[in-house]
Amino acid sequence: MRLLFLGDLMGRTGRTAAADALPALREKLKLDFVVVNAENAASGFGTTSKIASQVIQAGADVLTGGNHTFDQKEFMTAVDTDDRILRPINYPEGTPGRGWNIYNAPRGKKIMIINAMGRVFMNPMECPFRTIDAVLKKYRLGATVDAILVDFHGEATSEKMAMGHYLDGRVSLVVGTHSHVPTADCQILDGGTAYQTDAGMCGDYNSVIGMDKTEPINRFLTKMNKERYSPAEGEATVCGTFVETDDRTGLAKRVEPVRMGPRLAEHMPEL
Amino acid sequence: MRLLFLGDLMGRTGRTAAADALPALREKLKLDFVVVNAENAASGFGTTSKIASQVIQAGADVLTGGNHTFDQKEFMTAVDTDDRILRPINYPEGTPGRGWNIYNAPRGKKIMIINAMGRVFMNPMECPFRTIDAVLKKYRLGATVDAILVDFHGEATSEKMAMGHYLDGRVSLVVGTHSHVPTADCQILDGGTAYQTDAGMCGDYNSVIGMDKTEPINRFLTKMNKERYSPAEGEATVCGTFVETDDRTGLAKRVEPVRMGPRLAEHMPEL
Amino acid sequence: MRLLFLGDLMGRTGRTAAADALPALREKLKLDFVVVNAENAASGFGTTSKIASQVIQAGADVLTGGNHTFDQKEFMTAVDTDDRILRPINYPEGTPGRGWNIYNAPRGKKIMIINAMGRVFMNPMECPFRTIDAVLKKYRLGATVDAILVDFHGEATSEKMAMGHYLDGRVSLVVGTHSHVPTADCQILDGGTAYQTDAGMCGDYNSVIGMDKTEPINRFLTKMNKERYSPAEGEATVCGTFVETDDRTGLAKRVEPVRMGPRLAEHMPEL
Amino acid sequence: MRLLFLGDLMGRTGRTAAADALPALREKLKLDFVVVNAENAASGFGTTSKIASQVIQAGADVLTGGNHTFDQKEFMTAVDTDDRILRPINYPEGTPGRGWNIYNAPRGKKIMIINAMGRVFMNPMECPFRTIDAVLKKYRLGATVDAILVDFHGEATSEKMAMGHYLDGRVSLVVGTHSHVPTADCQILDGGTAYQTDAGMCGDYNSVIGMDKTEPINRFLTKMNKERYSPAEGEATVCGTFVETDDRTGLAKRVEPVRMGPRLAEHMPEL
Ligand SMILES: [Fe+2]
Ligand SMILES: [Fe+2]
Ligand SMILES: [Fe+2]
Ligand SMILES: [Fe+2]
Ligand SMILES: [Fe+2]
Ligand SMILES: [Fe+2]
Ligand SMILES: [Fe+2]
Ligand SMILES: [Fe+2]
Repeated sequence: MRLLFLGDLMGRTGRTAAADALPALREKLKLDFVVVNAENAASGFGTTSKIASQVIQAGADVLTGGNHTFDQKEFMTAVDTDDRILRPINYPEGTPGRGWNIYNAPRGKKIMIINAMGRVFMNPMECPFRTIDAVLKKYRLGATVDAILVDFHGEATSEKMAMGHYLDGRVSLVVGTHSHVPTADCQILDGGTAYQTDAGMCGDYNSVIGMDKTEPINRFLTKMNKERYSPAEGEATVCGTFVETDDRTGLAKRVEPVRMGPRLAEHMPEL
Repeated sequence: MRLLFLGDLMGRTGRTAAADALPALREKLKLDFVVVNAENAASGFGTTSKIASQVIQAGADVLTGGNHTFDQKEFMTAVDTDDRILRPINYPEGTPGRGWNIYNAPRGKKIMIINAMGRVFMNPMECPFRTIDAVLKKYRLGATVDAILVDFHGEATSEKMAMGHYLDGRVSLVVGTHSHVPTADCQILDGGTAYQTDAGMCGDYNSVIGMDKTEPINRFLTKMNKERYSPAEGEATVCGTFVETDDRTGLAKRVEPVRMGPRLAEHMPEL
Repeated sequence: MRLLFLGDLMGRTGRTAAADALPALREKLKLDFVVVNAENAASGFGTTSKIASQVIQAGADVLTGGNHTFDQKEFMTAVDTDDRILRPINYPEGTPGRGWNIYNAPRGKKIMIINAMGRVFMNPMECPFRTIDAVLKKYRLGATVDAILVDFHGEATSEKMAMGHYLDGRVSLVVGTHSHVPTADCQILDGGTAYQTDAGMCGDYNSVIGMDKTEPINRFLTKMNKERYSPAEGEATVCGTFVETDDRTGLAKRVEPVRMGPRLAEHMPEL
Repeated sequence: MRLLFLGDLMGRTGRTAAADALPALREKLKLDFVVVNAENAASGFGTTSKIASQVIQAGADVLTGGNHTFDQKEFMTAVDTDDRILRPINYPEGTPGRGWNIYNAPRGKKIMIINAMGRVFMNPMECPFRTIDAVLKKYRLGATVDAILVDFHGEATSEKMAMGHYLDGRVSLVVGTHSHVPTADCQILDGGTAYQTDAGMCGDYNSVIGMDKTEPINRFLTKMNKERYSPAEGEATVCGTFVETDDRTGLAKRVEPVRMGPRLAEHMPEL
């Protein structure tokens, strides 16, 4: 299978760039499944159900989230009822929505998507390692499901790399989100799992992690808030991760970044 | 000028790989100046004066540090007396050593190197923005000095991007360290400053940020320490940043990552 | 001199209780000077200039603040122009207002009030130890000024105790704020400085640090926000610190807590 | 029942003072059960099995712990095999030892002790609210057990107060530890549960939370380590919480601090 993951959509410019790019990407990369992290699609803070529909309409099969998933109260219903929308699996029991699911992919394939959140320098959710482990004990890659993609939304590179190795051999791809900067460390780990510490955001990289740079700089300098944060509005760079899995084992045969846009070195996998 | 910065040397494998690569890199990239972050060169925790000499011998002009700079008591003297060694500038007044310096480069050029540390999710040092600003008020890029390189050792991508923009137009390169993962966001900012959120470590990427992966995974799972951390010992990947500056303005004409080694997609600038 | 310090006024119930109590306290304890931390007086978030006037009218000589000082934009002018209002001294240079001042007390006495903020588990301001030290180098207790009171607004008990000892012998009182819970550790340190880790809030102790308990408990359980925080509205307990200084040395002769109200064991110093 | 809880034993001076005081306290306060937090008894870092035996010998029925419980490798066996020793309940599944237990008290009474750890500004353990809740769903105060004492080891006053209210009416006492400073907020909450934010340490209060003050102050000032932390060795103050429960309901009839020693205002409940 050929899978594409796109990192955090950041505001209008990010979600528009991703939506504009998806149809061509699906075709060019002959994609079987597309997952998009949408936690910042609505002005940087969460998503609305309308935006979610638009991104799905444009070619995303599943949307994942993170610490901003519940920023928009209106989105609670969508999270709870639309099974194409995931929120981190390690929210406490009873949280609306779901943190993982199995989806039908082309040619009768089944793909599992898991969304989880780190705890280092973040809110203390349930243990992401144990929560994911519990799911994987019930499904086996290459047997029950044909591919497994994990969006691990975290701050610390240490926690993300540890998760990659912990899941190595059991999932197709562990890809990080939340830092809003793509890392240049795509690799296939020893057990066959593809890994990238962070996919990077889909957003304007002439910014402070997607936000207009004036207010972040002001706060670092003065320790006072002057305005609210607002997304930078320059042309976005679309950032993501492309992985090709072995149809028999579900493990990764290939992993490469995708970067399209004005600010960063572009990269497009060649089929 | 052509400058190379190498990210955190991680343990024996990292420092050896960097030392082995430097002579060829100096020649191939016709380098005028080389800066190396050495905060983890001694088993992951600081540097020794002996290791520092070896790395300088191999071709580094200046060594920078970070939160691990003072891990080895023995190194205190070297920091204090050897002006090729920098520690973060925003340690409090009275700290041994220096956080910036001006060096002679080939062809009569002068280059300033500044080392600073972030405060988000880190120890509360003096303000890195204001401390660097104070130095830059006294020296002007393209006038007093021909190039300025800033190693900003920080955890949060937001703080690093904010620093990039804050210094944009006033220095040649702002490059991050500390996350031990190279980012794929080399760019020249609007004012002409080259920027990369993190250079990545020189170390074994089959690891948890350079450490053997067993104990970090154990701690994430059990919340108890079983052993000490020890550096992974597999072959290292050398990661860094290459920048070419305009001789007249000191601003960046070009910035590209350097990646040489077994695990990550290799990249070498073509002259 | 006889001084009273009252801890963080928490919302309407806290500021009202303090204002109601102050006239009688001034008389009963024959107070020469009263300092009140007002960082939460306006619904828990900052103060307004109107509230500040009311508290001063009721008998406070000086108002101190903390991490919430600048929550109300309107208050910026008052901080900047009214020298009876202090904000933490270790905000960066250029911040409106002042972090310390010398005031006239009865019988020709002079009293210095300093407000500072901790950095452990808090925003990385300038170093509170060094910032206060710089002021104290210019004024000597028992010589230039007759009493010095330090409101150290911090989270960690370690940082607060360290500050107490650091200033021991140089100021009359180091009293902590911010935790909103009074500590039972009033003592005179070896050098003669009175110390209490936290004065406690003036607020409703049937609460979560002064806030209505429903939403805090909800957030701890669900990791999601349901409502905004709002101050608990039950009857407040007034909490503070009483210190009597030696007129000759400015050091403390006596330090005791003040607690008046319905929930905690009451305590009133006997003259 | 009459119960005594003593806060974190800090080093030799703290454990000696507590051991010396316990026999007389048991008699004077006609105590039915004594619980002691011993996480810092061995030079500030954990406990040894020998020290644990000594404290039990001196009159403690149960020892609780915290973030330092596993500092001494040797202690692991004791935690795992001796049911008078508890470690925080919200360590992950599979951790040696137990986080709660039911003990026989005099006159055929049964008492449950629970030890848990907060997560705000601390290591992200399992949710303490939900973990304790799960235990309390199986036992009912005043029915299955005659008293329930909860040692909630946490940093943030907000999390501790939230826990008090969350458990209000379901346990006899929620008492905090870890801050090493006693709070002056003993109260019986609306539902009948006794509460104190922190019991305070048994240790030398002429210190920085029980440690010799030189090195902590040095680190705050210089951001560098000069020596290791070592416990202050002056005479300790014994700090704890006394609670009397209703034999029928198990709820609190009375709660008061205990403070015996040279630095803080002494307090001893009168029977
Ligand atoms: Fe994000
Ligand atoms: Fe995020
Ligand atoms: Fe490093
Ligand atoms: Fe570092
Ligand atoms: Fe406050
Ligand atoms: Fe505060
Ligand atoms: Fe402790
Ligand atoms: Fe502790």
